[in-house]
Amino acid sequence: MSEQQPFTWPIRVYWEDTDGGGVVYHSQYVNFFERARTEWLRSLGLHQAELQRDHNLVFAIHRMQIDFLRPARLDDELQVTVVLVDVGAASMQFRQVITIQNKSDEETPKSELMSTADVYAASLSAREFKLVRIPDNISIKLKRTINS
Amino acid sequence: MSEQQPFTWPIRVYWEDTDGGGVVYHSQYVNFFERARTEWLRSLGLHQAELQRDHNLVFAIHRMQIDFLRPARLDDELQVTVVLVDVGAASMQFRQVITIQNKSDEETPKSELMSTADVYAASLSAREFKLVRIPDNISIKLKRTINS
Amino acid sequence: MSEQQPFTWPIRVYWEDTDGGGVVYHSQYVNFFERARTEWLRSLGLHQAELQRDHNLVFAIHRMQIDFLRPARLDDELQVTVVLVDVGAASMQFRQVITIQNKSDEETPKSELMSTADVYAASLSAREFKLVRIPDNISIKLKRTINS
Amino acid sequence: MSEQQPFTWPIRVYWEDTDGGGVVYHSQYVNFFERARTEWLRSLGLHQAELQRDHNLVFAIHRMQIDFLRPARLDDELQVTVVLVDVGAASMQFRQVITIQNKSDEETPKSELMSTADVYAASLSAREFKLVRIPDNISIKLKRTINS
Repeated sequence: MSEQQPFTWPIRVYWEDTDGGGVVYHSQYVNFFERARTEWLRSLGLHQAELQRDHNLVFAIHRMQIDFLRPARLDDELQVTVVLVDVGAASMQFRQVITIQNKSDEETPKSELMSTADVYAASLSAREFKLVRIPDNISIKLKRTINS
Repeated sequence: MSEQQPFTWPIRVYWEDTDGGGVVYHSQYVNFFERARTEWLRSLGLHQAELQRDHNLVFAIHRMQIDFLRPARLDDELQVTVVLVDVGAASMQFRQVITIQNKSDEETPKSELMSTADVYAASLSAREFKLVRIPDNISIKLKRTINS
Repeated sequence: MSEQQPFTWPIRVYWEDTDGGGVVYHSQYVNFFERARTEWLRSLGLHQAELQRDHNLVFAIHRMQIDFLRPARLDDELQVTVVLVDVGAASMQFRQVITIQNKSDEETPKSELMSTADVYAASLSAREFKLVRIPDNISIKLKRTINS
Repeated sequence: MSEQQPFTWPIRVYWEDTDGGGVVYHSQYVNFFERARTEWLRSLGLHQAELQRDHNLVFAIHRMQIDFLRPARLDDELQVTVVLVDVGAASMQFRQVITIQNKSDEETPKSELMSTADVYAASLSAREFKLVRIPDNISIKLKRTINS
């Protein structure tokens, strides 16, 4: 009955990610979420450069809702998760979170929630940017992550 | 009975904004929305560098919902609007849209909707990142834009 | 005998441009220089989206030397210049500077130098990324800016 | 007589790094070089967030010369090196290169050179942005990397 750990990608915060407020600039979280989705696809054997070049396929984000809960800072090492919650004929819906390991001296370190995102992607033809069905062999791989 | 035009800021699309899909990378829209809010604040006489330095005040985004409706491309000139829909003791809520002028040869050019965003900001102390009341003189300026 | 003013493009500093040091992140200057070159090309009637799509031509930077002299900050309004110093069969060389108007109360405001750049661009075929001659009609427009 | 391998940091190319030309946007290389320097400092036990907060010290780039030799593309895995070539009382000079492993089917894979950079940094007080001596304990660590 144990729940499977979601796919998680570590991301270090560099100067380029911070802003003059001393924290990570909010649009960088959007990039962090995307890097993790790209690595999740790669973990399934799906390389987007190949999909674009050889299969005329790109996944484009058409909706995001992001909550920014705590500010991340320079040198923080964040963990970004990816959970596919739904896949349609030409769409995917993700739930993602960013956490950081609490650096306190407490005995049981626990992670703090920094940001959450609901992300909606569509599969488009790479050249015409028209909705296209996700190819069956890809769709099967994606759906398997939901049912596992 | 005419409705007032919302604050609008023009933004040109440069190479830096595009990605290998040939369109504007989705997180750049987040930057475009922010630039427009910054210019809207400036139009009210509120300069964020001053607010941070002299008043220990920053506005931080804590939630965004963005819809990406049409892809923008290199050299496009976008129009980004800002409408403040609500202001609380330590919060602001915005509705923003990005449009582009239809380049067709039709007689009546009309704008196409590229993206919409609901943006929730909090007022924080610049140093401690704690919620603080929006100072009265600023709050009055902000509220005036809603009732006008 | 008066010297012609170089092409100048104003750029406002936004949150996205700053880093946790409280100043503009150094790679943003590279973007600022590029925006000004793009606008300089546009001022000559050369639109890069068209050049890429209709003429299979892109200008790619192959060398830059940048000096970062003074830090720019949030809300600063910078002036970015573009001077074409040389144009070859498939190359262009630029000299660019970024200045800011001194905000002091002195009678004669003067501009401070923030950054300088020597930029070397090559003309490439957009699809194969191979060196190609700059088309004559474009080369003539470019050379005219040197001799004027 | 064997030469020591330089510090090397792997960087994956994501959508955010590419531009509408289908390759990595040139200013992203500046970020890649910076990430590698940050990780090199970290490998010496020097954490810049701590240096800034606890020692009022930042390293700021004041000059870069970059050569862009080959275009990198989406999904490429780049290797970024860091070699400190000189350290002064308040300065550091780096030589960095970006390579990619040749993906050909040849027996002996070899790396291709994508970009090189000469980078000049100054040590500044984090608050006043004035030149300050690199503290002795840090300077010793830095110099050790040159003589090793």
